[in-house]
Amino acid sequence: MNHKIIARIVSQILGFEALFMLPSLFFALAEGRTRTALAFLASAGLVALFSLVLFLSSRRGGEERQYFAREGMVSVALSWILMSLFGALPFFFSGEIPRFIDALFEIVSGFTTTGASVVPDVEALSRAVLYWRSFSHWLGGMGVLVFLLAIVPAANRGTGNTVHLLRAESPGPTVGKLAPRMRETAKILYLIYLALTALCFLFLLFGGMPVFDALCTAFGTAGTGGFGVKNASLAGYSPYLQTVTAVFMLLFGVNFTVYHLILLKQLRPALKNDELHLYLGLVAGSTALIAFNIRALYATAGETLRHAFFQVSSIMTTTGYSTADFDAWPVFSKAILVLLMCIGASAGSTGGGFKVARLILLFKTLRRNVLRILHPHKVQVIRSGGQVISERSIENTSNYLAAYVFILLVSFLILSADANSATTAVTSVIACFNNIGPGLDGVGPAANYGAYSVLSKGTLILDMLAGRLEIFPILVLFSRSTWTK
Amino acid sequence: MNHKIIARIVSQILGFEALFMLPSLFFALAEGRTRTALAFLASAGLVALFSLVLFLSSRRGGEERQYFAREGMVSVALSWILMSLFGALPFFFSGEIPRFIDALFEIVSGFTTTGASVVPDVEALSRAVLYWRSFSHWLGGMGVLVFLLAIVPAANRGTGNTVHLLRAESPGPTVGKLAPRMRETAKILYLIYLALTALCFLFLLFGGMPVFDALCTAFGTAGTGGFGVKNASLAGYSPYLQTVTAVFMLLFGVNFTVYHLILLKQLRPALKNDELHLYLGLVAGSTALIAFNIRALYATAGETLRHAFFQVSSIMTTTGYSTADFDAWPVFSKAILVLLMCIGASAGSTGGGFKVARLILLFKTLRRNVLRILHPHKVQVIRSGGQVISERSIENTSNYLAAYVFILLVSFLILSADANSATTAVTSVIACFNNIGPGLDGVGPAANYGAYSVLSKGTLILDMLAGRLEIFPILVLFSRSTWTK
Repeated sequence: MNHKIIARIVSQILGFEALFMLPSLFFALAEGRTRTALAFLASAGLVALFSLVLFLSSRRGGEERQYFAREGMVSVALSWILMSLFGALPFFFSGEIPRFIDALFEIVSGFTTTGASVVPDVEALSRAVLYWRSFSHWLGGMGVLVFLLAIVPAANRGTGNTVHLLRAESPGPTVGKLAPRMRETAKILYLIYLALTALCFLFLLFGGMPVFDALCTAFGTAGTGGFGVKNASLAGYSPYLQTVTAVFMLLFGVNFTVYHLILLKQLRPALKNDELHLYLGLVAGSTALIAFNIRALYATAGETLRHAFFQVSSIMTTTGYSTADFDAWPVFSKAILVLLMCIGASAGSTGGGFKVARLILLFKTLRRNVLRILHPHKVQVIRSGGQVISERSIENTSNYLAAYVFILLVSFLILSADANSATTAVTSVIACFNNIGPGLDGVGPAANYGAYSVLSKGTLILDMLAGRLEIFPILVLFSRSTWTK
Repeated sequence: MNHKIIARIVSQILGFEALFMLPSLFFALAEGRTRTALAFLASAGLVALFSLVLFLSSRRGGEERQYFAREGMVSVALSWILMSLFGALPFFFSGEIPRFIDALFEIVSGFTTTGASVVPDVEALSRAVLYWRSFSHWLGGMGVLVFLLAIVPAANRGTGNTVHLLRAESPGPTVGKLAPRMRETAKILYLIYLALTALCFLFLLFGGMPVFDALCTAFGTAGTGGFGVKNASLAGYSPYLQTVTAVFMLLFGVNFTVYHLILLKQLRPALKNDELHLYLGLVAGSTALIAFNIRALYATAGETLRHAFFQVSSIMTTTGYSTADFDAWPVFSKAILVLLMCIGASAGSTGGGFKVARLILLFKTLRRNVLRILHPHKVQVIRSGGQVISERSIENTSNYLAAYVFILLVSFLILSADANSATTAVTSVIACFNNIGPGLDGVGPAANYGAYSVLSKGTLILDMLAGRLEIFPILVLFSRSTWTK
């Protein structure tokens, strides 16, 4: 294990975290919230100090060049865990979230773009804290290591360094190289991300949303997070603002490669994409089925359709904003939403979940298995977008499903000792592990995660991290073999 | 596709089914139930006639020798579907189950050893019908094609014929050859099965259970089915009878290879078995956790432990008998039971579910995936009982999980449009697909499946068949490629 390069990467990440805390300091001062201001100042100081110590320790002795997948995974997992531990400090120091486990839950929920909250009344929080919550979505959405790659040339040293980092942090079964150099890829991704976020912000402003609300909502939408600044989530805003948010959530759930191809004017390959078709098809189909199912609950067809589309877009992209309490909808509509929670958004988007691309790959693998029984001596390959998928990728996807199911079931068992109902337990796990936020029953859109025990919150924190980092970095970090010779 | 050999196999199976209906004829006559007697006579006549026509059609033209996995799968799937359609006739003709879809549901539930019932009052049924229900468990438990192999030498013709049949019908990821010839293996399995069933019957008689009850209970226990002759399942019997049943359920959930090895006095290899250890460990662990969780509900520690052990043994072996309404137990106990429903019994037993052996294999595969990230250039094989597992078996197990999850989720979606709650919908599917019987809430031990629509019952019928035949025979039968050149 190359400890030095891991230490250097983690130290850089934490250095940036200190910087990112500064805007909240100004918000706190502007609102006259002295304790909150001091909390952000102290947190930023602590994380900067830790980063410095780590950086100095990484410079001692000779340079090691070895850098493989395991180093990538350990760097990513460690960065996210430390970033969360330090990121929770402002909530805790300011007293706005008095218990540390709650503060940690809230910031992990932020960075992992889950949006599950333990705060019963978000409108009582200071702007500084609200901004930090929402900004954590934006940072976590595209990935903090991807950010590092995009702007720090130093992180680029060492052979194969960057591709391993990008692989470990990017959602989906395969990572598309947008440019020959990984650093260029990371830059392109962040520029598209920035531009789309700015566009969302402007559209919200245009509809009359206050600047601060628009900023936070744009962060939450772009990162497919779901933290809002109102207790009623998006329910209190105008139909225009709800529709804008629904459309942008949908856009951020698309594989960013599609936008890159569109920018390169390669429209045909951009739109000829299995995953895009199934993604949009699932959104359209689910919206239609749910709208039909809930038609008796709303006054007009337009309102019915708007609520159905908003909730489907929000759940499928794993954002978690709501305009209606879907826990009160009929069982069939809830079943569709729970299935969409598990499927999730596209690979290479900011959304979470199992990913549409993996679903397609599994389906093709299954079809091949049946064909193999019928024609045992015929060689069968699996293609996607004209390209042959490697057997290793197929194996990894199957293993991903196994790991996904194991984690879901074990977490469900732990939560069931604490939850008020099986539905609460199972949807808490599904909603956190797939980085959505609200579940059903005890954790529905009108409720929150505050009532859970420390054990349950700890389990959900690990689920959120495992879900965002796509399981294997966390398994590698906690595997005994990683730390023994 | 070799249609002739398929027709011959199916015709032989149906011929035996006609014979197996005759005992019920005598029960009906003894009870003076004329309509029921006529129903069994007419059904037996119809199925015998169909079998004869099929047999004659299979004799025309020249003999084909080709026989591969696909023929095995199609034979098995077709046999089970036709056997069910004809097996439902006595229920329907006798008027004791007035709707055909209900009669079909009941007999599929019988043959697949599910034990899910649509009959609200089983004590009102005639002995002829009760016997047919329970006997269908016994026949389906070890497999009707395995039975055919064991006793009909003619079915043995054709190259590789028998191993494909055995593979298609036997539960578990791999089929152990107990003897060099498949016919011997099938015979040994049935002899062990017969002996254990007789032993169970004697133990029940010894405890004072009436002869007819003991016969039906022994059939239901041996096949891990769950149909009983009382509305209260096993709750009305003495603690001794409940304990005997619980122990025998556990015994029938063990891989029969273990018994064969014990008979050969090879105790060490018999007991040195990963699957056996995990199976017994899960039963012991779950019993302890549940007993602790429900300790306030029963008067004595003995009673608590008995109910916990009985329900765990019944659910884990996918039998479905009950001595207590576990739907009224706390969420944690219910969560354990639902997880056990999915895991199921051992491969090569009469139990259903995902199978403990597959769980172990998936876990080893997952561990290998982590080790591969750490040591990308090291060749890693997976072993079980000292033997290297082939990569194809590993792939098949992963694919099995994918197919399992797809079927669960799609069925859940269909059921959710009809069920009174998400819990009812999801546990209906889990309980039918894993061949258990009772679920929770609307289909708990105190309820039944009668209220579902024809669409839902049809879905559950397919789930029961897919679960018992381990998915792929059904997928092959309904795959377009099977029927096109």
